[in-house]
Amino acid sequence: MELSHRGKLFMGLAQQAEADLRELLAIPGNYAVLFLQGGATQHFAQIPMNLAGEGDSADYVVTGHWGEKAASEARPYVKVNIAASSKDEHYLRLPPRETWQLDPRAAYVHYTPNETIHGVEFHDIPDVGDVPLVADMSSDILSGPLDVSKFGLIYAGAQKNIGPSGLVVLIVRRDLLERAGRPMARIFRYAEHAANDSMLNTPNTWGWYLAGLTFQWLKEQGGLAAMQARNQAKARLLYGAIDGSGGFYRNPVAVASRSRMNVPFTLHDSALDADFLKESEAAGLLALKGHKALGGMRASLYNAVPLEAVQALVAFMADFAKRHG
Amino acid sequence: MELSHRGKLFMGLAQQAEADLRELLAIPGNYAVLFLQGGATQHFAQIPMNLAGEGDSADYVVTGHWGEKAASEARPYVKVNIAASSKDEHYLRLPPRETWQLDPRAAYVHYTPNETIHGVEFHDIPDVGDVPLVADMSSDILSGPLDVSKFGLIYAGAQKNIGPSGLVVLIVRRDLLERAGRPMARIFRYAEHAANDSMLNTPNTWGWYLAGLTFQWLKEQGGLAAMQARNQAKARLLYGAIDGSGGFYRNPVAVASRSRMNVPFTLHDSALDADFLKESEAAGLLALKGHKALGGMRASLYNAVPLEAVQALVAFMADFAKRHG
Repeated sequence: MELSHRGKLFMGLAQQAEADLRELLAIPGNYAVLFLQGGATQHFAQIPMNLAGEGDSADYVVTGHWGEKAASEARPYVKVNIAASSKDEHYLRLPPRETWQLDPRAAYVHYTPNETIHGVEFHDIPDVGDVPLVADMSSDILSGPLDVSKFGLIYAGAQKNIGPSGLVVLIVRRDLLERAGRPMARIFRYAEHAANDSMLNTPNTWGWYLAGLTFQWLKEQGGLAAMQARNQAKARLLYGAIDGSGGFYRNPVAVASRSRMNVPFTLHDSALDADFLKESEAAGLLALKGHKALGGMRASLYNAVPLEAVQALVAFMADFAKRHG
Repeated sequence: MELSHRGKLFMGLAQQAEADLRELLAIPGNYAVLFLQGGATQHFAQIPMNLAGEGDSADYVVTGHWGEKAASEARPYVKVNIAASSKDEHYLRLPPRETWQLDPRAAYVHYTPNETIHGVEFHDIPDVGDVPLVADMSSDILSGPLDVSKFGLIYAGAQKNIGPSGLVVLIVRRDLLERAGRPMARIFRYAEHAANDSMLNTPNTWGWYLAGLTFQWLKEQGGLAAMQARNQAKARLLYGAIDGSGGFYRNPVAVASRSRMNVPFTLHDSALDADFLKESEAAGLLALKGHKALGGMRASLYNAVPLEAVQALVAFMADFAKRHG
């Protein structure tokens, strides 16, 4: 943590981290990889600053809380067109592709492949034609293989599948870097960060270093195909336990839209919620309380969660249902 | 690093860190303390966004590299008036207060109390009347007691005297939070961060935690008066060795403007530089190479450097001069 970001030792770690990420995601050479700050939320604003000119519009596909926020933070910088939203259906399913009102002149199409609070996830990359596709992958990056060439820009806050908070990884097709026409400080220009290898100013060196360790760990695990198989097994096990509980537990999301990363579920009687949380915590199963917007429970199955943890959760859930059913 | 920033455990650590910083600097209650991201460089831009309205101007006092950068990044957001600059004197002395061309209608006056590359430092807080004084204290915050009430806004990248990089501490008088009139994303508004206890989005939790440990350590050391005495002793020892070397070593900065934090110095014959660096590194004295803009050497005497380290440096310098003089 005391190493200079300009020193040989840190520069070596930083370059290795980028090389490992490029290998894991098979990132084509015409994409820049940036290690930035500010959280995904700052980039909700910085993306339109960089990708949209004055007067441009951008299409937003909103499938949950984070998509709403992305659109809202973008509004000072671009005309936001909500091309599709499942809000009226309480975000319980993805809006069918054929209902999207895309504008072929849009500066980009933004979507959120996985929504952590509502537990909905895209299982395919949507086809949006020639308009650059922008994805907030904060909660699902590195959970499986990805065809990066289908995207104009991918960004992710580190704190789910990459490393500690305070770091954002951003992958952007280089031809999009030249778009920014508006006056802004250099520090907000992705092109400047790309030209300076993300060292335009002092980066979050510790976060970058730990991200590099995570990338090495992912390679040791067999890469993203192996992570995908593991994540699918974890999700299958938990959804199976919920769906097979005879109504004691319930996940309300349409089966085809269910997230592999975040599984919200309710108990058939919410009066049991407090007992469930107390007993699960005593059993070493932490942080199962659902987001306050939905209530109930939520299990997050990010890369760092082993299959054994999900097996323990499912066993606890079965036992709890037997005792309280 | 895996704790949720919304959990009780981290919230407790975060609040304690703020309370300890408030105690160390005796921060008045009408100031908000924010823990942000982006480095000081991002706030070079974010400060005018927040403190200046459309058409406003701001006064910049430029005494080195960082002041230049602050002014340059501010330009897209405010009319920058260089009220004083010592650039023509190669930043070797502070411009005398009576030469500053301050505008009483300026939105604020910005200055850099300590310049790390040029090694110049203000030893008093300049009187700028009723215009809010804004200070980039990245390299001298917590090096001694400070009368916070003299400032409108103080900000500091963490990586010198606070903790690991990726964190910015910002102290702002609350009445200034209501100034921002321009359209911008919530994430750039200091008022929003203040209203959300710096948890508008996920903060750099690890950086914040380590900052808190540093604040506790500073209290254990006897607080900022004790640190000031220690820092003065370190600087006196090193400048004494340079000035007493009979011209073998030389610091070109006017004595009254010399920095206690960063001491650039040259050898009488730059052909000896490579030997000096090699031998000092072999003696365990690291990172003495000067900034490429100035050449020569630079010793940084931040809070974490003990007096013993400066004693070791001075002994090495005397021995080197004897062998090569």
